Amino acid sequence: MTTTDVRPELPAETPSDAPPDTPLDVEVLRRLLDGRFADLKEQFRAQAPLSLFTPTDDLSTREHRDLTRSRLRELAAWGGHERGFASRWGGGDSPGGQVAQFEMLGFGDASLMIKSGVQWGLFGGAVQALGTERHHAELLGPLLRLELVGCFGMTETGHGSDVSSIGTTATYDPQTQEFVVHTPDPSCRKDYIGGAAEDADVAVVFAQLVTGGEVRGVHAFVVPLRRDGQNLPGVWRGDDGRKMGLNGLDNGRLGFDHVRVPRTALLNRYADVAEDGTYSSPIASANSRFFTMLGALVKGRVSVSGGALSQTKVALEIALRYGARRTQFKRPDGGGEVVVLDYLAHQRRLLVPLATTYALSFAQDELMGEMDELLKVQLAGEEPEPTRQRAFETHAAALKVASTWHATRTIQTCREACGGNGFLADSRLPQLKADTDVFTTFEGDNTVLLQLVAKGLLTSYAQQFSDMDTLGMARFAARDAVVTFAGRSPARSLVADVVEAGRVPDDLHDRAWQLRMLADRERHVTESLAKRMRKARQRPEAERFAAIDDLQDHLLLAGRAHTDRIVAEAFAAAIARCPDPAVAALLSDVCDLHVLALLEAEKGWFLEHRRMTTLRAKAITSAVNALCRKLRPRTGELLAGFGTPRAWLGSTLVG
Amino acid sequence: MTTTDVRPELPAETPSDAPPDTPLDVEVLRRLLDGRFADLKEQFRAQAPLSLFTPTDDLSTREHRDLTRSRLRELAAWGGHERGFASRWGGGDSPGGQVAQFEMLGFGDASLMIKSGVQWGLFGGAVQALGTERHHAELLGPLLRLELVGCFGMTETGHGSDVSSIGTTATYDPQTQEFVVHTPDPSCRKDYIGGAAEDADVAVVFAQLVTGGEVRGVHAFVVPLRRDGQNLPGVWRGDDGRKMGLNGLDNGRLGFDHVRVPRTALLNRYADVAEDGTYSSPIASANSRFFTMLGALVKGRVSVSGGALSQTKVALEIALRYGARRTQFKRPDGGGEVVVLDYLAHQRRLLVPLATTYALSFAQDELMGEMDELLKVQLAGEEPEPTRQRAFETHAAALKVASTWHATRTIQTCREACGGNGFLADSRLPQLKADTDVFTTFEGDNTVLLQLVAKGLLTSYAQQFSDMDTLGMARFAARDAVVTFAGRSPARSLVADVVEAGRVPDDLHDRAWQLRMLADRERHVTESLAKRMRKARQRPEAERFAAIDDLQDHLLLAGRAHTDRIVAEAFAAAIARCPDPAVAALLSDVCDLHVLALLEAEKGWFLEHRRMTTLRAKAITSAVNALCRKLRPRTGELLAGFGTPRAWLGSTLVG
Repeated sequence: MTTTDVRPELPAETPSDAPPDTPLDVEVLRRLLDGRFADLKEQFRAQAPLSLFTPTDDLSTREHRDLTRSRLRELAAWGGHERGFASRWGGGDSPGGQVAQFEMLGFGDASLMIKSGVQWGLFGGAVQALGTERHHAELLGPLLRLELVGCFGMTETGHGSDVSSIGTTATYDPQTQEFVVHTPDPSCRKDYIGGAAEDADVAVVFAQLVTGGEVRGVHAFVVPLRRDGQNLPGVWRGDDGRKMGLNGLDNGRLGFDHVRVPRTALLNRYADVAEDGTYSSPIASANSRFFTMLGALVKGRVSVSGGALSQTKVALEIALRYGARRTQFKRPDGGGEVVVLDYLAHQRRLLVPLATTYALSFAQDELMGEMDELLKVQLAGEEPEPTRQRAFETHAAALKVASTWHATRTIQTCREACGGNGFLADSRLPQLKADTDVFTTFEGDNTVLLQLVAKGLLTSYAQQFSDMDTLGMARFAARDAVVTFAGRSPARSLVADVVEAGRVPDDLHDRAWQLRMLADRERHVTESLAKRMRKARQRPEAERFAAIDDLQDHLLLAGRAHTDRIVAEAFAAAIARCPDPAVAALLSDVCDLHVLALLEAEKGWFLEHRRMTTLRAKAITSAVNALCRKLRPRTGELLAGFGTPRAWLGSTLVG
Repeated sequence: MTTTDVRPELPAETPSDAPPDTPLDVEVLRRLLDGRFADLKEQFRAQAPLSLFTPTDDLSTREHRDLTRSRLRELAAWGGHERGFASRWGGGDSPGGQVAQFEMLGFGDASLMIKSGVQWGLFGGAVQALGTERHHAELLGPLLRLELVGCFGMTETGHGSDVSSIGTTATYDPQTQEFVVHTPDPSCRKDYIGGAAEDADVAVVFAQLVTGGEVRGVHAFVVPLRRDGQNLPGVWRGDDGRKMGLNGLDNGRLGFDHVRVPRTALLNRYADVAEDGTYSSPIASANSRFFTMLGALVKGRVSVSGGALSQTKVALEIALRYGARRTQFKRPDGGGEVVVLDYLAHQRRLLVPLATTYALSFAQDELMGEMDELLKVQLAGEEPEPTRQRAFETHAAALKVASTWHATRTIQTCREACGGNGFLADSRLPQLKADTDVFTTFEGDNTVLLQLVAKGLLTSYAQQFSDMDTLGMARFAARDAVVTFAGRSPARSLVADVVEAGRVPDDLHDRAWQLRMLADRERHVTESLAKRMRKARQRPEAERFAAIDDLQDHLLLAGRAHTDRIVAEAFAAAIARCPDPAVAALLSDVCDLHVLALLEAEKGWFLEHRRMTTLRAKAITSAVNALCRKLRPRTGELLAGFGTPRAWLGSTLVG
């Protein structure tokens, strides 16, 4: 026996994992899944330096930070990150392209992905979106070349989701024409800020702007942190230390003790302060101004959603390829040991999330398209149409929530599905789990975002039905709902065709029926929420908080119901535009698995609201099982659709 | 502003977290929850060296292993671990006491807990349970004093859950009266073995015993690994390296190249080989022998279940105390910022798992009692009554699955509920999450164990109804089921009283109704599974594997349904024996929350099987919300019931 300290050779993946008789055109599948930025993604796969993708386990915090720093320099030299910026400053006028590259980095070390996102997404993005010519001219070139390293100082130790309540102040002093940036107490220190512990030379600091004795709400300022390697007077930095994951990133804290910056430090696209201290803004309402500023930064949520899906794809590929090799227990008929992926339970654990990953990827692609168009308007110095921008923000929040919770759950399942092997660092699964964990709570806490989604729905609902009488409401049938209700979905027109073509739903695989089920749930949940919310708001002031808070689980359900519908519709739309019938047929099965598994998981609601018979509920469970059986031999093709180069997987569980 | 690198002072926990008007006797609550080993636990809390409980984040693998090693020595000197061994060898004849101490270690660094479990639970336990006088006399003293460090070599790289298929061989050579231990190929190397990488001097090795040319199945052997610091000839060791968690433990691999051990190395309680190679065993069937040996080791599962609950309690206490201080968003009525635990969504996330943790702790205590009695029989050299032993094994598997998945889910939720703070190592939540993650897949993979539970149910079902005619089956009503069906539950007699007293279930808080719902589900699922299984077994041999595999999701459901019932019954029994009416009333609410949240989560099944009306399903959701509101002010008392000394929490999120 040879007993060197390497893993024994892995057995081959089992034959049933090989392509079926008629080989599928995997390239068509991959390009469809890659979506709008397929060319860029192909180029990245072919040309990105492999050195960005070597494993990083068992590094100390110090070593991991050093490695990430040097990889960021390598990436800066290789390029691509500049795409999201205006071409006149060296950019590529392609915000979607920038996020697509971020998504591709998500197949590697997440610390590098997030580190690049801090520099060119959060910091650079804030300068681009909230600043004006003077900031662009001075900062964009250096920050793209990494001559200037920045961080994004929004969150405070005591203030997370509720950005409007942050406590840092920037008080204008007309005598010196400076803002005085100050941290009034330790709960107002900036915290969890990537780059704040070590690397950042400068910060975009969000603070309450005070001028003429009046508080004008949250605005962003460019605040230098050090010069010649020394922190500037009044600037205090702390280190958040070791974290669950993302230890290549130096998260830290910032405090300011009456730090003075020039008047021009204000990122003044949406508001300005004149030399004499006069405040002005093209947006009249302080509330609108605040949300416009935040809205300009939504790209971060779209990025996190994409990155979460990339890490999920890596985890699924590791677990599925391992499951197609690993044997456990002998067949009762003496046919040798059973490959674990041949067990129904294992298929249910892994193939359902695989199907959902496809669904979310198609939804992500639509979101990317919408974002790209809106940000191009912004890059051109214009403002996007408000209704469209709001719908996009709701869509982005919904997808961010869905993708990141999907990542957390799926990577956890993949770890468990690989048993003890999945607990070892060299499987890569622990790193994937640890790094992605914070995705559900940063760039907007998921529980808070889901309520935003629901509130967006309520607004849209109120707008559409404000002039409809009670009888009209009663006539508002589920079928119409799909076509007319609940926010703009880019997949809408294609899906409408599918729905119009729908027959009486005796077939569980009828796409129109599936989509109608989800749309009907969304409609019903939103409608009843609207009614309850109206009542709650009419309560005496002292009872109002409790009355509205009682609806929180209903709000969260509405958010989920909306997300479930738009994701399924995006999948249906992708199938409709698929040019290859064999690929479309395979994807149709994958979509069935995604939707039916979702209906199965949510059958409590559907039965409770008499949208599903008990017979049908049982039939759905059988159909999910049958689809798992059917798709088991197609696993290899579906993974090939992800297009992940083997060298990027970085796991000893995959040969 | 003072800006030193420490957290700002935490605000006080909110007044609504203070005890209500009539202070509860928290000691009664704590002692009830502590259960049978309450005295031992109190003593441990008061006397265990605090040095065992200091945080271990940001240690390198090397540092963490060194620390754990030195803590194990400290623990060995302090004592208590010897309880589980026979008093004639220096033990305390209290197997339950040993596991109770393991459980208490679970409030600290899990690496130390598992390290101690490897030495005195797995290694020492195997010597005690599978060996005879000669092994006890030679090994127990030194291993208790840590003069001999051992490991437990069962799992192989290619063979995990299916122990009967391991490939290591131990071939008897009558010429030299030795066994030749051999690893035929790398997939048969022992793997993930705690202590194998560095610390173990000796291993209990599970291998296929071969004598007279005949394979006799899996047996355990004591195999020395090194002498004077050098590995013995033919012994190869590898290192599993960095892991997701438990990095204080040196997991590794073992390979054997024709390593010779004396005939007496066989742990020969259940089988022996004579000098001439003749095999003998008091147990006729090879299968029974194998399962008797494994059954003697079930203590490991009970321990993991207990340890998982301890780690969960720490995580919940951190998240709940943080949630009672952290504010987010202003009240709409101008009443300042809202404490996050005052939000319904936050209560649902954390108070439901708190209630379930209580439920599982009571179930764990019953399991401990049963284990203690059975192992005392074994320590006395007798064999426990087989039916009772089998019921205990099913019970242990069920609880291990429930507790460890509960830990994984709950600690994840706690991490998310603390936002960015929960991602920092100094919150301790990342370490709790990482360390406990493997609990769901070691000491029996949960998915495999849950199927064992279901198979145990089927066996018990078949035995009880083999002589009942069809009419009898039809008359077998749900209510009778609770009293007569589905395995021995130690809580049975008390619960039967509760059920008998049950009125017509118009009240959701009627305990008898709640328990009947769970018992009825278990009965229905098991009954229909039994029918389907019978049909599947009648299929032609070629189709049988697929037919049985099709029932896997049904099997898993049956396992869960059984577990849900026994856990709820244990809770009801604990309330019934509570001496203090105020404590009992509080626990009754906690039990309601646990059961109703479970019924809500499972309403799909209940509606589908017409066990619940849609009106009732909606009422359950309202009841869960109301219980969250009601228990929110009792959080402090319920946490005090855990009895965790503040100094053990080791989190910057708790003052």
